[in-house]
Amino acid sequence: MNGTPQEALLPYRDSTAPVATRVRDLLARMTLREKAGQLNQRMYGWDAYRRTPDGAFELTEALHAETERFAGLGALYGLFRADAWSGVDHATGADAAHGAALADLVQRHVVSAGRLGIPALFVEEVPHGHMALDGTVLPVNLTVGATWDPELYERAAAHAAAELRARGGHVALVSALDIARDPRWGRTEECFAEDPYLAARLTEALVRGMQGETQGAAGDMRDGLFADDKAPVVLKHFAGQGATVGGRNSAESELGLRELHEIHLPAARAGVRAGAAAVMAAYNEVDGMPCSGNRALLHGLLRERWGFQGIVMADGLAVDRLARITGDKVSAGALALTAGVDLSLWDEGFTHLQEAVERGLVGEDALDAAVARVLSLKFRLGLFDRPYSADRPYSADRPNSADRPVPAPAADRGRALSTALARGAVTLLHDDGEVLPVRPTVSRIAVLGPHAATTAHQLGDYTAPPRPGTGTSVLDGLRRLAPPDVAIRHARGCALTGDDLSGIPEAVAAASAADLAVLVLGGSSARTPDTDFAANGAARTAVSEMTSGEGVDLAGLRLGPAQYALLDAVTATGTPTVVVLVQGRPHAVPEAADRAAALLTAWYPGPWGGDAIAEVLLGHAEPGGRLPVSVPRSVGQLPVHYNHKDTEYRSYVDESAEPLYSFGHGLTYTAFAYGPPRLAEDTAEDTVEVDITNTGQRRGRTVAQLYIRRLRTAVWPRTLELRGFRSVELAPGERRTVTFPLGDGRLTQVGADLEAAVLPGTLEIRVAESSRAALTAVPLVLRTDGQSFTAPAETPL
Amino acid sequence: MNGTPQEALLPYRDSTAPVATRVRDLLARMTLREKAGQLNQRMYGWDAYRRTPDGAFELTEALHAETERFAGLGALYGLFRADAWSGVDHATGADAAHGAALADLVQRHVVSAGRLGIPALFVEEVPHGHMALDGTVLPVNLTVGATWDPELYERAAAHAAAELRARGGHVALVSALDIARDPRWGRTEECFAEDPYLAARLTEALVRGMQGETQGAAGDMRDGLFADDKAPVVLKHFAGQGATVGGRNSAESELGLRELHEIHLPAARAGVRAGAAAVMAAYNEVDGMPCSGNRALLHGLLRERWGFQGIVMADGLAVDRLARITGDKVSAGALALTAGVDLSLWDEGFTHLQEAVERGLVGEDALDAAVARVLSLKFRLGLFDRPYSADRPYSADRPNSADRPVPAPAADRGRALSTALARGAVTLLHDDGEVLPVRPTVSRIAVLGPHAATTAHQLGDYTAPPRPGTGTSVLDGLRRLAPPDVAIRHARGCALTGDDLSGIPEAVAAASAADLAVLVLGGSSARTPDTDFAANGAARTAVSEMTSGEGVDLAGLRLGPAQYALLDAVTATGTPTVVVLVQGRPHAVPEAADRAAALLTAWYPGPWGGDAIAEVLLGHAEPGGRLPVSVPRSVGQLPVHYNHKDTEYRSYVDESAEPLYSFGHGLTYTAFAYGPPRLAEDTAEDTVEVDITNTGQRRGRTVAQLYIRRLRTAVWPRTLELRGFRSVELAPGERRTVTFPLGDGRLTQVGADLEAAVLPGTLEIRVAESSRAALTAVPLVLRTDGQSFTAPAETPL
Repeated sequence: MNGTPQEALLPYRDSTAPVATRVRDLLARMTLREKAGQLNQRMYGWDAYRRTPDGAFELTEALHAETERFAGLGALYGLFRADAWSGVDHATGADAAHGAALADLVQRHVVSAGRLGIPALFVEEVPHGHMALDGTVLPVNLTVGATWDPELYERAAAHAAAELRARGGHVALVSALDIARDPRWGRTEECFAEDPYLAARLTEALVRGMQGETQGAAGDMRDGLFADDKAPVVLKHFAGQGATVGGRNSAESELGLRELHEIHLPAARAGVRAGAAAVMAAYNEVDGMPCSGNRALLHGLLRERWGFQGIVMADGLAVDRLARITGDKVSAGALALTAGVDLSLWDEGFTHLQEAVERGLVGEDALDAAVARVLSLKFRLGLFDRPYSADRPYSADRPNSADRPVPAPAADRGRALSTALARGAVTLLHDDGEVLPVRPTVSRIAVLGPHAATTAHQLGDYTAPPRPGTGTSVLDGLRRLAPPDVAIRHARGCALTGDDLSGIPEAVAAASAADLAVLVLGGSSARTPDTDFAANGAARTAVSEMTSGEGVDLAGLRLGPAQYALLDAVTATGTPTVVVLVQGRPHAVPEAADRAAALLTAWYPGPWGGDAIAEVLLGHAEPGGRLPVSVPRSVGQLPVHYNHKDTEYRSYVDESAEPLYSFGHGLTYTAFAYGPPRLAEDTAEDTVEVDITNTGQRRGRTVAQLYIRRLRTAVWPRTLELRGFRSVELAPGERRTVTFPLGDGRLTQVGADLEAAVLPGTLEIRVAESSRAALTAVPLVLRTDGQSFTAPAETPL
Repeated sequence: MNGTPQEALLPYRDSTAPVATRVRDLLARMTLREKAGQLNQRMYGWDAYRRTPDGAFELTEALHAETERFAGLGALYGLFRADAWSGVDHATGADAAHGAALADLVQRHVVSAGRLGIPALFVEEVPHGHMALDGTVLPVNLTVGATWDPELYERAAAHAAAELRARGGHVALVSALDIARDPRWGRTEECFAEDPYLAARLTEALVRGMQGETQGAAGDMRDGLFADDKAPVVLKHFAGQGATVGGRNSAESELGLRELHEIHLPAARAGVRAGAAAVMAAYNEVDGMPCSGNRALLHGLLRERWGFQGIVMADGLAVDRLARITGDKVSAGALALTAGVDLSLWDEGFTHLQEAVERGLVGEDALDAAVARVLSLKFRLGLFDRPYSADRPYSADRPNSADRPVPAPAADRGRALSTALARGAVTLLHDDGEVLPVRPTVSRIAVLGPHAATTAHQLGDYTAPPRPGTGTSVLDGLRRLAPPDVAIRHARGCALTGDDLSGIPEAVAAASAADLAVLVLGGSSARTPDTDFAANGAARTAVSEMTSGEGVDLAGLRLGPAQYALLDAVTATGTPTVVVLVQGRPHAVPEAADRAAALLTAWYPGPWGGDAIAEVLLGHAEPGGRLPVSVPRSVGQLPVHYNHKDTEYRSYVDESAEPLYSFGHGLTYTAFAYGPPRLAEDTAEDTVEVDITNTGQRRGRTVAQLYIRRLRTAVWPRTLELRGFRSVELAPGERRTVTFPLGDGRLTQVGADLEAAVLPGTLEIRVAESSRAALTAVPLVLRTDGQSFTAPAETPL
């Protein structure tokens, strides 16, 4: 591949030609071996390069061998990954200043490795910001879910995509589709919510934010070109991974198809409709077959019924796992390709696709279709026209340079967005009304607990090592933001894990000498170099203080024992205590609700979470968060969701069946009154409106949640289903009418054919501040005929 | 109805005519009102009668009103029920001597209430023996499951049916189809096993034992006549009730159809194939619709695909629950009838079927089909020909008498069968080899614990109040069976529930003064008059010592706190301690395994369980039981089954994912060696054989368990699947070859079409003493072509 004039005239090189034309032309020129290469993503990116003693990057033999094997390279995973698993850090990896140069170096080699000059996709982990050195760390998905703020998240996602592209990365792997149905699962933090509607809205925001408006995204996405600061997303994971048995990572799901369609598929469908470039097939099985080998799921549902034209990527090593039933990895690869997988991740199975085709295990037409999808994405990204990180014409002879014609977005903006998400997610679960926001009379605050003075555990899984000094702990935040005459004293008290109680006396002394204790407890997904990892990067054992994260499933949902002892000891001092939980899943800490004056959860708030928490404690900001998941009392009552089926839910003999706090819950520093919902009369489309009044003494924000409760219906209904939400900020005494449009599929139900439609029936509309409040809210009864609805002549209440 | 000669000539009165002919004739004579009446079973049986001061029975106005309403009565539930819920006891109910007279009194009224003289079905609870005064109480299903002995259970079931019929009852309600998948569920005791194969074999034994050989049972069951000592069974519950979310009684199931077919349906299918007269539709939903309104389940699967011709009875008040989505109870009844329910239980909905037909909510053809099925069963029972409890010609003018021409079976035989089941179920979970069977050197035994000296808690749910002195506790058994020179001392120590520790010192003193402590701990399903009941008889609150039973779901699986303190205190004495658990579900008592010299579970062993336990402790009998369910370490690791899908089952960070004891486990007092499985060469059909040797010093019984492990397969496999079991009793040093036939569908798999078939593939045969042992047993690899199988030319191992 020399970039000669003749080649520049080939149709696939014509940047003005439609993507489909270019794909067709290129595909026709490719050998079986070259095609198979396009579907492989076998290497760990950090094995592709090393840093020389003088700090420059050089390519490894491993990369050379890989590109030689396939006369090219389909995709490269995690070129910028830096964490305990990859072992990459600031000494060995590529930071923001050098990432584009590294990407160009690799790409130049890939382009030159094949006669057709096909560039590689650089696929990166972007679960909450680009997980690379200097990447802006955003709060994890569960925290995003707690904001109920898709607009803010869309902006944050756009920022992350811009960082990724400026660095030379192309494709963003983002968890979005897993629904949090079992908090034992260590990846609960990667879920937006237990609720399909909230998750769907945030998934749309993610796709819009990262991908932007691509040409033709709503139609034939093969022609949708991505802007230079936008990144195609791989939505993870398709499908049903939030419901594996026992909350065990990548275990089977016993999920029924209806449960799948009602709860686990809506976010995926919304993401596909929003134009997502790719989805990742999940590890778990759906109806007897792991997703990566499940043609009914990947082909029948995703491609045929939903019309998805993007890429299906397998999860790491998921194709090779299929050898368990096919007998060997060659046939495993053939099964996955037949089922609908286009791009493999780390598997051996897909490296044998040429053999699989030659042996007749899979047809070349299936191979061609997958290759076409991968090539389409490369064309849509402009990789053939501008293969390097810069906005420059296609050429393989440009020098290795560190200049970045696509400028990285401002880091300050990243920090502001990350902090805004953290701020919006801080959720006030319990409040005796006496201590928050911190009163002007408070002059001595004891900031206690294993989470109080560190940012390491605020970050969530996957995170790259931060530069020293990045982020703010709760102690930092309070020190910065509290009035200067407030004395702040800190004691750690205990570690996150274990039962070492030796630090508790110091914490008790600090609490006793204070007017207010802020006790920051919780869990952690921070990996350390001594964590043992599986081949797919999931933690095998938690030798660190990890209580969450991929592979860190928990049977008991409890924090470390010393934290309960610390809670007991601090609250026993009689000093009013505010407990803040920093956590990646709802841990079971019912004791905190009993003993603390106020209880908040900040989930994992990201690097600057300390600022956000301090702002809320001090009243500089409102506690804006609402629960995206129900908080159980104990593991014994799982599952707990607000949207269970409307059956008798009698209590256990030894415990309530109700969660401690339900989905949508979150107190404010003021109070709101909701009027009854009514049909708006003068709007063009069907709309419900509700009058909301701030009846308290402070300005505040309420998240009005619209739930439906189906009465007459063809399928057994859930107790409630979220179908709309609106945030309103009101001054004391202010009243506003909030409107909720009901069109656009909001009343759909999954029918007997498992297709979503607005079925005829009767339902109630309830608008309230939480799912529990909705149970007793005044309903508006509507009758739908499948198209529109009317209030019944006689309301049956 | 006067029995005039003309009427005697009507075709439906001709006892020599085929049942179908009689049904057709009778149906043609009936009014809509009479037909609707046949499908109702609205009354509680104990409301139909009262006892006069002189001890005679008289009918109530309630019964008169009911028969007048429908010009007859379809069925009467629980005429003999006597328990805390019904409030019936020996003073107010009908005992064995008077039951037939009561039945005749009621039947005579019913027959005379309508112009066609149609007798009623008397439907009775027979979950573990006839739950009536003086009925022989058998161990609960879970205990039966622990025997792995279908032949013994068949005899016990036959005894229960004979008692029922001698008393004047007709139809037996028996739990059989619920698969124990979540021990939090209070009805776990009503399940045979967590395993579909074991449950299916016991369900077949139940049907064979209770129904016997009916004419044409395998073909058109409408012509199968029941012998006078046999009872048609209603198999409960269809389908999937063992998998409701959270183990909550009658909550929804989120079960996938494949899980349903692989795990929850095989017992039902086996029962239907064995000729079961009826099934009961479960409360829970399957794929979006409660079973009682689920036409896909009751009609599409049960009647059309399985060819079931018997009756579908709804569970108590389950039809009325459908009004939640239909809007009212009239339409609820119509929906249930349309779906496939023939006979209602306590509902109002079915009382309006005439109106439902007249309003066009359901067709009269559906009504006729249901009535035909109910009438068929009455004809098959001979009720038209011999309507009373006696073997005498049809007549309405015989006097009310207490003579019972059908003799009741001998009570001694009932006790022997009940005890045999209890004996065969005692399961040795843990044994340090030092104390059991009780050594001749032991001269002082302390028999301790809340279960040690009482039989009330050995019985299980539904049980009628026993006559004083019935049954034997563990203390009774040891006193009777231990050598006369052994001093036996008893202390209760604590109650089953609560945290009263005041009795512990006495127990500690007794243990300290003994050579051996036998500590009997556990749970209870014993209802007391102060239990609060729901309308369907499920317990609402456990104000007694109930920790199990219908409605008594448990979030924590723990016993009362004092029991753990007692365990700690007794084992701390240093006296070797044998812990015996008497329980209706696997409670989480991992401490017992750690601290006791030996640990046994007897489940609920029935009235004479004390004898059975003492025999095993003393070595008069072997510990013959094997676990029918896996025993979890804690509730946090649920679900635990041996037959989970073969996925990565990594441990939780805070606990193993493996159960404490796995399905099939049970130690013996001797030891057995299993040779490798091989294909028998000289048998007519495909057979696997294994040599088993008693390598120990005592005679003993081993339960050889044949598991398959699928290798190459079209559907993702489970780790293991039980497909055969054989009990062998061997003398020390004795060796025997045990054979397992592999035909008759034993290798079937549920295919993509959800039909069971022997699919082509490769599988392993493993024969071992437990599911856990099977994981490391030497396999025999077989290749199936869908019909038969061969050993592969080259074994891939």
